[in-house]
Amino acid sequence: MKFRYSESVPKRTDNPTAAILKAAADPQVISFGGGLPAPELFPVAEMKAACDRVFDHNGQQVLQYAETLGYPKLRRQIVDMMQKRGVQTDVPNVAVVTGSQQAIDLVGRMLINPGDIVLTEDPTYLAAIDVFKTYGAHLVGVEMDEAGMRPEALAQALERYPETKFIYTIPNFQNPTGRTMTADRRAQIVKLAAQAQVPLVEDDPYGAIRYAGTNLPPLKHYDQDGTVISISSFSKILAPGLRMGWLVAEQSFMEKFVQLKQNADLHTDNLTQYIVADFLDNVDLDQHIKKITDVYRHRAELMLSQIDQYFPASVRHSQPEGGMFIWVEVPGTDADELLKVCLKNNVAFVPGSAFFAGKVQPGTFRLNFSNMDDEQIRTGIQRMAKAIQTVLA
Amino acid sequence: MKFRYSESVPKRTDNPTAAILKAAADPQVISFGGGLPAPELFPVAEMKAACDRVFDHNGQQVLQYAETLGYPKLRRQIVDMMQKRGVQTDVPNVAVVTGSQQAIDLVGRMLINPGDIVLTEDPTYLAAIDVFKTYGAHLVGVEMDEAGMRPEALAQALERYPETKFIYTIPNFQNPTGRTMTADRRAQIVKLAAQAQVPLVEDDPYGAIRYAGTNLPPLKHYDQDGTVISISSFSKILAPGLRMGWLVAEQSFMEKFVQLKQNADLHTDNLTQYIVADFLDNVDLDQHIKKITDVYRHRAELMLSQIDQYFPASVRHSQPEGGMFIWVEVPGTDADELLKVCLKNNVAFVPGSAFFAGKVQPGTFRLNFSNMDDEQIRTGIQRMAKAIQTVLA
Repeated sequence: MKFRYSESVPKRTDNPTAAILKAAADPQVISFGGGLPAPELFPVAEMKAACDRVFDHNGQQVLQYAETLGYPKLRRQIVDMMQKRGVQTDVPNVAVVTGSQQAIDLVGRMLINPGDIVLTEDPTYLAAIDVFKTYGAHLVGVEMDEAGMRPEALAQALERYPETKFIYTIPNFQNPTGRTMTADRRAQIVKLAAQAQVPLVEDDPYGAIRYAGTNLPPLKHYDQDGTVISISSFSKILAPGLRMGWLVAEQSFMEKFVQLKQNADLHTDNLTQYIVADFLDNVDLDQHIKKITDVYRHRAELMLSQIDQYFPASVRHSQPEGGMFIWVEVPGTDADELLKVCLKNNVAFVPGSAFFAGKVQPGTFRLNFSNMDDEQIRTGIQRMAKAIQTVLA
Repeated sequence: MKFRYSESVPKRTDNPTAAILKAAADPQVISFGGGLPAPELFPVAEMKAACDRVFDHNGQQVLQYAETLGYPKLRRQIVDMMQKRGVQTDVPNVAVVTGSQQAIDLVGRMLINPGDIVLTEDPTYLAAIDVFKTYGAHLVGVEMDEAGMRPEALAQALERYPETKFIYTIPNFQNPTGRTMTADRRAQIVKLAAQAQVPLVEDDPYGAIRYAGTNLPPLKHYDQDGTVISISSFSKILAPGLRMGWLVAEQSFMEKFVQLKQNADLHTDNLTQYIVADFLDNVDLDQHIKKITDVYRHRAELMLSQIDQYFPASVRHSQPEGGMFIWVEVPGTDADELLKVCLKNNVAFVPGSAFFAGKVQPGTFRLNFSNMDDEQIRTGIQRMAKAIQTVLA
């Protein structure tokens, strides 16, 4: 059978990132390539207890079909979490989604017609690039620096592309760069988007995982007229295997969103929604997040100190205050070539080329530190340093 | 904020079916409107035990990110289930999906460009109609009778629309009609699709719930060259709240499918996949299904006998051998008007108009019998009978 696929299906069948992650799955390889939380921090016993209570008290209910936008109690808990983060919202404005990936996908589907312009930080989250391209978007990168997307660059882009369909940004500990947008810029960027009447999609999976500096309000905090669609997730603060995220948006948007969510999977796993809701009732989430951030702070600091010690003096890297990634530039190298040498030395990372919607900045790559112990971080960075020497020689 | 939505977003914000189900949620109302399994048959204790074992043995693993196409052990178990149903397949050809709804959505996305023709039984599953229309499909109904889609009518449609993108069929206990396609027709329809090189999407959520007659092989059983994409689900044989289904297709299709599945939600809830896999290891699924079919047989027979006793002699209804639905036609009535009278009498159903892609057959409606006890079935049908008398008077 020769299938005639739609225009939404990627022409290529290769998947370079999947190939990297597969190579990195070799137990010999120390992989800084993935974006996995530290599994030893998962609250297994507490989740099991939550699960038992859910089956004891709501066994039939959790196994039955449920509301498309999610379990109302969990949505109320999300409202409370958002309030703590500085966002006033209400249950009808909250949707539980099957991982924040689903929210990215459905927002893309709701807004993009083939040929539409989407503005993003460049580099940005590679699976968002894939999704938006699948719907036929033309991605335009907006210049960023250590303080996040530059408002002047965004203003220029909006002027140049007045038909821009939406802006996509990861304000906290951005993937892949680890950079965070300052509070001033948040306010400015929300204002620019509102003035241009261009929706601003805020993807914030990492914001709660802050181990240095002070918390900054989400972009949604600055939103006066429903411009901001805010996406977040339990993946990094609880467990990614559950595929549980949420979306907050204004009412008119939610009325359309519910129809596409229903088409996509009717609703998110009801059992898991009840487990998470029960967990949130019985466990101090902030305490749990503190445990995570303590470990990640240590790992980030260790990796940065190892980089400073072993990589050539010309290296540049981001200084993340949270999240799971460090962005590194080794001038004079080609990161794809460097990866080949590194894989021979049994260490892996993701080259920058995977993350750029536009022109690739050569010699850049992303390192993940959340999923490796001290010994692996030390050994892996030293292996990388040797590979860099080889490549630069 | 005024959002400029993509062409994939339905223009309407009303949702007649949702409105019916909402009206039917009034505890005073006996609702034959939904499509819910009987919750008292959910194996709550066995699921809890499975969950406990999973947390005890694989606690960290089930909470971590996992493979896009699903937990390999569960995919192997699905291969074995499909073999029992008469389909030879293998793990790489099986994807676990977030409910069979997701498979319908992703198959639609993979194959439909705006304006493409999709052939379906008419009436058919309303959420499939919604999905395919969202992608811009033009749905063409193929005539069916008590023995399912008519091969002669399919042959004519394929001749008239040689560019048909795919055929969508529910061969067993079809939603909404409860009708089942005969074995002869299955073989013929697969052959016609293969000759025309048009993919045949088989949606089979109900096939295992057979309480009369003999099991018939899935369409995939007759597939020689990868024409058939087969979709099924744990929703009706285990629990719909878990949102767990699967798709079986040939290798070239799977290579594309995995990319869109990754874009959609990275993977299906890993915890739930492990729970289902453990459940299948420890519980005799066939025994559990027998419990379900015994109850549903009784309810279907009771509802049919009540219809024969209380509805006017002119009534026609399907004679389902499984599944959850009876299709009724009351000549001389308008089912939408009938519903209004019924709701006043505290009984609900879904009028036929919701299920037709093309011309609505007047006076038709769908009754669900799986989710109501004997008393509710008796009282509800008698209330409907009174409403029919009022409407016909």
